Amino acid sequence: MKALSPTDSAFLWMETRNQPMHVAGLNIYTPPKGSGPDFVGKMMEEWRKHLGAQAPFNLKPRLRFGMWYWEEDTDFEMDYHVRHLALPQPGRIRELLALVSRVHGNLMDRNRPLWECYVIEGLPGGRFATYIKMHHALIDGVSGAKLTAQAMSTNVHEIKPPLWAQTLGKAPRPRPAASSKGLLEQLTELAQAGREILPGIGAGLVDLARSAAGEETPIPALKAPPTPFNVEISGSRRFAAQSFALSRLKRIGQAANATVNDVTLAICAGALRQYLQNHAKLPTKPLVAMVPVSLHGETDLGGNQVTLLLAELATHIKDPIKRLEKIKASTTQAKDKLRSMPRLQKMAYGMTSIATFGPALATGLAGKYPPFNLVISNVPGVRETLYMNGASLDEIYPVSIPTHFLALNITISGYRDHLGFGFIACRRSVPALQRMLDYTEQSIAELEEALGLDAPVAKKATTPARKKPRKPAAKRV
Amino acid sequence: MKALSPTDSAFLWMETRNQPMHVAGLNIYTPPKGSGPDFVGKMMEEWRKHLGAQAPFNLKPRLRFGMWYWEEDTDFEMDYHVRHLALPQPGRIRELLALVSRVHGNLMDRNRPLWECYVIEGLPGGRFATYIKMHHALIDGVSGAKLTAQAMSTNVHEIKPPLWAQTLGKAPRPRPAASSKGLLEQLTELAQAGREILPGIGAGLVDLARSAAGEETPIPALKAPPTPFNVEISGSRRFAAQSFALSRLKRIGQAANATVNDVTLAICAGALRQYLQNHAKLPTKPLVAMVPVSLHGETDLGGNQVTLLLAELATHIKDPIKRLEKIKASTTQAKDKLRSMPRLQKMAYGMTSIATFGPALATGLAGKYPPFNLVISNVPGVRETLYMNGASLDEIYPVSIPTHFLALNITISGYRDHLGFGFIACRRSVPALQRMLDYTEQSIAELEEALGLDAPVAKKATTPARKKPRKPAAKRV
Repeated sequence: MKALSPTDSAFLWMETRNQPMHVAGLNIYTPPKGSGPDFVGKMMEEWRKHLGAQAPFNLKPRLRFGMWYWEEDTDFEMDYHVRHLALPQPGRIRELLALVSRVHGNLMDRNRPLWECYVIEGLPGGRFATYIKMHHALIDGVSGAKLTAQAMSTNVHEIKPPLWAQTLGKAPRPRPAASSKGLLEQLTELAQAGREILPGIGAGLVDLARSAAGEETPIPALKAPPTPFNVEISGSRRFAAQSFALSRLKRIGQAANATVNDVTLAICAGALRQYLQNHAKLPTKPLVAMVPVSLHGETDLGGNQVTLLLAELATHIKDPIKRLEKIKASTTQAKDKLRSMPRLQKMAYGMTSIATFGPALATGLAGKYPPFNLVISNVPGVRETLYMNGASLDEIYPVSIPTHFLALNITISGYRDHLGFGFIACRRSVPALQRMLDYTEQSIAELEEALGLDAPVAKKATTPARKKPRKPAAKRV
Repeated sequence: MKALSPTDSAFLWMETRNQPMHVAGLNIYTPPKGSGPDFVGKMMEEWRKHLGAQAPFNLKPRLRFGMWYWEEDTDFEMDYHVRHLALPQPGRIRELLALVSRVHGNLMDRNRPLWECYVIEGLPGGRFATYIKMHHALIDGVSGAKLTAQAMSTNVHEIKPPLWAQTLGKAPRPRPAASSKGLLEQLTELAQAGREILPGIGAGLVDLARSAAGEETPIPALKAPPTPFNVEISGSRRFAAQSFALSRLKRIGQAANATVNDVTLAICAGALRQYLQNHAKLPTKPLVAMVPVSLHGETDLGGNQVTLLLAELATHIKDPIKRLEKIKASTTQAKDKLRSMPRLQKMAYGMTSIATFGPALATGLAGKYPPFNLVISNVPGVRETLYMNGASLDEIYPVSIPTHFLALNITISGYRDHLGFGFIACRRSVPALQRMLDYTEQSIAELEEALGLDAPVAKKATTPARKKPRKPAAKRV
């Protein structure tokens, strides 16, 4: 038995039936040429030959004397964790997203290792999907996605054991001995945990950040308006997803002299503006997004060192170019500040930016005075085509965690030449979430038009041919 | 807003992630002749035209000042409650039961009316299934099954609105004014709630039962042995189901001069003996089952007035006829006692029988000294063939509630000329539950052989022709 780190334990303590603490990834595959309708069934038969699971897939949580430990599950049962099901006819992406919406709202059994893999067949043309759900206490979303990618192959002919049977070696973060870590290192750990989701882990965050960063660290002056996204959430979810050609975003970035990250934020900002306007709830003040920023390259502690910045989304501005420019100015200012700091101070800065969220939540003010309105996370992806048992991976969509007072989360993952946008929200607080897909497309088109770029249809024709004709229509809820 | 009765509230308070408090029914249908593969999809399209839900399907729970109330859900969303999905190929009953096992372990969203309906297509020959899950606070299993049956038709040509859109008029039991009910009536209410599941609602039960029934009420002398079924349970479930021709049970009953209820208990006893023997865990003392007994006919308070009796299952006896006789003696003795009592004293007697369960659970002794080992419930069924939108209902299986220290529940429902056995258990405490189906078949065959009756195969041929050839094999996990 190994004790969980304080932050990993926090994900177990914070979890309630309205606020499950798992992350997931939705992958869509095309079976290899010439394979029959039993491809998925045969693959599962092969998987069943692997009787055990490797860390972290064999670990279940156990509470002893008020502390959480990982314990090996000696009765590992693949048929509990791996769930083979099918979409009803006509098996559109619409049915797939409805299914993901439902299963993402269900808590996992804490008497088992905290992960579930759904293998879903019945998409048109023999395509199938996997939805792999892991508890945040076991692994964070970025590491989970990496693990899933590592378990696949870049070689169409390679057959690997299933994800959970491979020794990918990524055991859960161990609990540090109390004396072994300095304050800033603990802060780093907190920042990692807080990369995707924030409230609730804020206990003591203000003090930690303040004392670590010193009084001279500027606390951002941004104030976010109350929105329908900053409310207590229910236990049901809605998931919407669509992918867009990276080339379109790059072209916008070149024309507007902005990074792809800024363009991504601007696209989300346009979609959010449209959504709130259509619900007659657009605040006069601009929305603020919390954006994780990777510090990769500055550290050898692994790829997950991040800090956070608060970006003004300029949702009060009608003109898409002016909106993008305002966003650029906001993130540039934040990054300039970060650039001048040493790595650990950067982490502290990020923490300070969001530090008010903990107290705001605790005092019940998070709805009235949210420090920010939502998390928009752009996760680095894989460039090469991946294969699982010869089936090619076509699309990847992250499914993150809405929390109380952060009812909507947008996580974006790159894969090959596309960006997969995953919108996950409380089904009740954020009605008609699926329209965000149209608004996102419109938001891109609006920028292209304002910048005098080709119409998206013409541009689409130049993107590499993909497996599905009429892709955008087919991929929407 | 209407306050919940204390017993209905108890089902909400008792619920934990390891002990969900919902009951369900699994129905299997054959679409009408000549209907295409889109029959289910079209039916759901028709259902979507009904925008609202009627009581109790429109009621969600709300906690105010420590009390539960029912509140109307003004944002009723059919696509949340009604879930269309499909079985993966080859779409056997095995895949269906795996699916039911999984969804029965999931808690429902308390921000919504507490019911879910799964419409599952993809069984061989175009057959489909519904799994309808309702919270016990909203409705009990017997009433839920009745409601489902009422919503269907005995006329193949009749198209009715879906279950939730019909005014079946069964609103939840209202909370009585504190002064309006005597002690015995409160007891009646408790007994109704306790019919299917027991521990936890036992708070104060002993006192209630004692004072109501007087000191002279005999407390049964049965003592149940500890078994693998009397342990704390996990949050995951396994469901196994199979139906058997009623004629086989009746023939055994005639030959052995026993009621169908006693034969049912004897069949379960034989299967339980086999299961425990194969796991090397058969106790030397006989298992004790808690069996709900209907008092219908003696009261006009509705059909749900029940009492409970404890039946010795004689699992220590190898000879199947001697076992049946011992069971008969045990239930006859219990019923003789009941017969001599007025109705309310019967209820009190039933309560007294199980009264030790509450304290035993509270003191953690329920595993060592269980007052009984499992609940075996035989629910009255419907004789006529029912139709839903022209699709004929072929089979009905109840899915009940395992609780801490009662990890296995067997509920049996009659429909037409068959009895549907539903075994629901904690997946971890009761491994290989599906083998209970073979043991049940063997247990029937063993009685038939011992009584010198025809072999079941010969007998089977005389049962009315059903839609599936090789039915028993096809219907097993």
